[in-house]
Amino acid sequence: MSERAPRVVIVGAGFGGLAAAKRLVGKRVDVTLVDRRNHHLFQPLLYQVATAALSPADIAAPIRSILSSAPNVRVLLDEVVGIESSSNQVILDRTGPLAFDWLILSTGACHSYFGQDHWASHAPGLKSIEDAVDIRRRVLLALELAETETDATRRRRLLTFVVIGGGPTGVEMAGAIAELARRSASNDFRSITPRCSRVVLVEAGSRVLPAFPPPLSLKAEQALSELGVEVLVNSPVSNVAGDHVASGRVQIPAHTVVWAAGVQASPAAQWLKAEHDRQGRIFVERDLRVPDHDRIFAIGDTANVPSMDGQALPAIAPVAKQQGRWVADQILGRCAMPFAYRSFGNLATIGRSKAVIEWGNYQQSGFIAWLIWSLAHIWFLVGFRSRLAVGISWLWNYFTYQRSARLITDEAVSSSRILGREAGA
Amino acid sequence: MSERAPRVVIVGAGFGGLAAAKRLVGKRVDVTLVDRRNHHLFQPLLYQVATAALSPADIAAPIRSILSSAPNVRVLLDEVVGIESSSNQVILDRTGPLAFDWLILSTGACHSYFGQDHWASHAPGLKSIEDAVDIRRRVLLALELAETETDATRRRRLLTFVVIGGGPTGVEMAGAIAELARRSASNDFRSITPRCSRVVLVEAGSRVLPAFPPPLSLKAEQALSELGVEVLVNSPVSNVAGDHVASGRVQIPAHTVVWAAGVQASPAAQWLKAEHDRQGRIFVERDLRVPDHDRIFAIGDTANVPSMDGQALPAIAPVAKQQGRWVADQILGRCAMPFAYRSFGNLATIGRSKAVIEWGNYQQSGFIAWLIWSLAHIWFLVGFRSRLAVGISWLWNYFTYQRSARLITDEAVSSSRILGREAGA
Repeated sequence: MSERAPRVVIVGAGFGGLAAAKRLVGKRVDVTLVDRRNHHLFQPLLYQVATAALSPADIAAPIRSILSSAPNVRVLLDEVVGIESSSNQVILDRTGPLAFDWLILSTGACHSYFGQDHWASHAPGLKSIEDAVDIRRRVLLALELAETETDATRRRRLLTFVVIGGGPTGVEMAGAIAELARRSASNDFRSITPRCSRVVLVEAGSRVLPAFPPPLSLKAEQALSELGVEVLVNSPVSNVAGDHVASGRVQIPAHTVVWAAGVQASPAAQWLKAEHDRQGRIFVERDLRVPDHDRIFAIGDTANVPSMDGQALPAIAPVAKQQGRWVADQILGRCAMPFAYRSFGNLATIGRSKAVIEWGNYQQSGFIAWLIWSLAHIWFLVGFRSRLAVGISWLWNYFTYQRSARLITDEAVSSSRILGREAGA
Repeated sequence: MSERAPRVVIVGAGFGGLAAAKRLVGKRVDVTLVDRRNHHLFQPLLYQVATAALSPADIAAPIRSILSSAPNVRVLLDEVVGIESSSNQVILDRTGPLAFDWLILSTGACHSYFGQDHWASHAPGLKSIEDAVDIRRRVLLALELAETETDATRRRRLLTFVVIGGGPTGVEMAGAIAELARRSASNDFRSITPRCSRVVLVEAGSRVLPAFPPPLSLKAEQALSELGVEVLVNSPVSNVAGDHVASGRVQIPAHTVVWAAGVQASPAAQWLKAEHDRQGRIFVERDLRVPDHDRIFAIGDTANVPSMDGQALPAIAPVAKQQGRWVADQILGRCAMPFAYRSFGNLATIGRSKAVIEWGNYQQSGFIAWLIWSLAHIWFLVGFRSRLAVGISWLWNYFTYQRSARLITDEAVSSSRILGREAGA
């Protein structure tokens, strides 16, 4: 009985890592949860921070608070720089080596610009609170600059917003930007007519929401049109610059561009020199172990799990959460079956009061779908306080069309530099 | 009747500028309100953002929204770089010259380090949302770094928080940091005991809250002690470095320092080459006009108004608001009396459920004072949405001791750089 409890190290407190940690609470294991952030982020609602509907703290909770009453879980604010698998150690940037008996890699993904990394400064992606606040600043500042711009061509460019990528994030961003720019702010300006803002969603494939059945893609495209979003399909982006987006010979002059097109897994595969797919996800065994590393699991956006049809599982929260719990059960010796994902359907929302839902053969779109979407997201938000705050903000936005977090802020840059930098563009 | 409406330019959308603009809504004047921020900030509650109790958007509202239904008011996001009083023009950084018939300068104040500007990087002040988020990051990060620090001396230093300046802001900050560090986070750490955090309030004078009667200062010092704050009076600061604060021969090793000691008016006096006091406030006439500039007023923290007792009016919101309304009335030709400030008392709060209030001869301290303080602040918050959100956050904090906005974020710096920079300190 005096045997030491097994040490479980979990890297990343996203949906997968947090689910694994919660499953291990109170069990005979010593858990260390490492994240380079102090907060767990409810990423599905991040686009609402980027479009000024919610505050960062509404969708982010301190990891320590979530696990406050779990004495066998220790939370470390640190960043992994490598793994020494021969000695079963994770190397941390600040606190050095950390030994493990079991290791769970749930390090998530970041943006990928398909090798065109110089696009990043013109078209920020949406993964962190900082990204969201940056995009919010760009969108609001574009309206402010347009208000005082006297040149008609430049003003049109300032009032054009392009979202690249027609997946759920891109569709949600485009809808929300259209609502913010065209409706919420519509009475606030004197020189410009925000309703004349142009919002363009550019998708390389033949339809938006390719993971949904074609009829729902069509519904989504209709709902976007009603919000005033132009949808361009079959339009792979060939260039992104400070003043335009190009797809082949089509050029869209635009001041503000958001990237929702590609993701790249974190460098976990490189730490282990493991085989990975083009997006950097480790090819794991059917029990989510990393090949040749019996005590290391990879889950969520870090893993490519073999499935019957050869398709990777979708990069969504339910997959990561189920994998996190399943791996925890493995470590506790409770489970010997291969992992199987149980789908609870697919949801995406398009602006105020429209959504699409797929659940097996059940398909739904429109207001009912939006209600289901809202309730599901409020339900899954971590912590009662956040649920309450988000619920209130949504009701407020719904009835008033107002956005409650329309702040242009930047910690590290003085406001005169913000103005100067943007005005020169 | 075809005569052009007088053009009123207001610089700064703080309490004074906004009050003036609101008074001029719907009147026969063309108002332009210029601010380098897009939001009006409810500064009295900024310390609650710095200590993770409120989100930035709870206490900041877009200036445009506030004045959305005022067609004769135009809001400009820009920064004043000078004034050409001979031609009645304000020179804006981005949009160039702006002509006025009447000009109201309500540009507020910033921190002053008494000529020791190099202290600024070690001891940030609290004036903007960015300042507040920076202080929040420093306080929360200090606890995180202490959790993994193995050297006892360094850990003690990481767990020591010094607030410089015993005015209302300093007292509020010290109380709130003590609550955050010693109580709210107390179950979240495994290696450190946040309750052992040391919070020191350093004041140069002989008592805290010098603007209040001595008995209330004593009450405030008692309330601070109960929260675990050490109060050092008669302790002018002689040095602020990255790892300590010194007052004469007393050295306090501390990782986190907050500056609440001195303010300096914005450069409005320099734009006009007007006479000003040591804090940079323009000596105005009794009708708030800048001497030799009949059409230019200065109000709020920008002005030093002559009074009977030779004392400048306090740098608080009610003074600025009354002056703003009074100047607007002057412009509308409604008022010929010299400005007289009508005091509605003085309030300061010390952490959860303690406050002090002075109202003429009426003095109150403790819980009743805190209730009055809370209701007054919720009442004066701009916009119903903010009132509701702040009310809920406060109730939540009050009953749970939790802080809802405990986020470490930084837009412009990657998290590894945050860690690296702080770990080296």
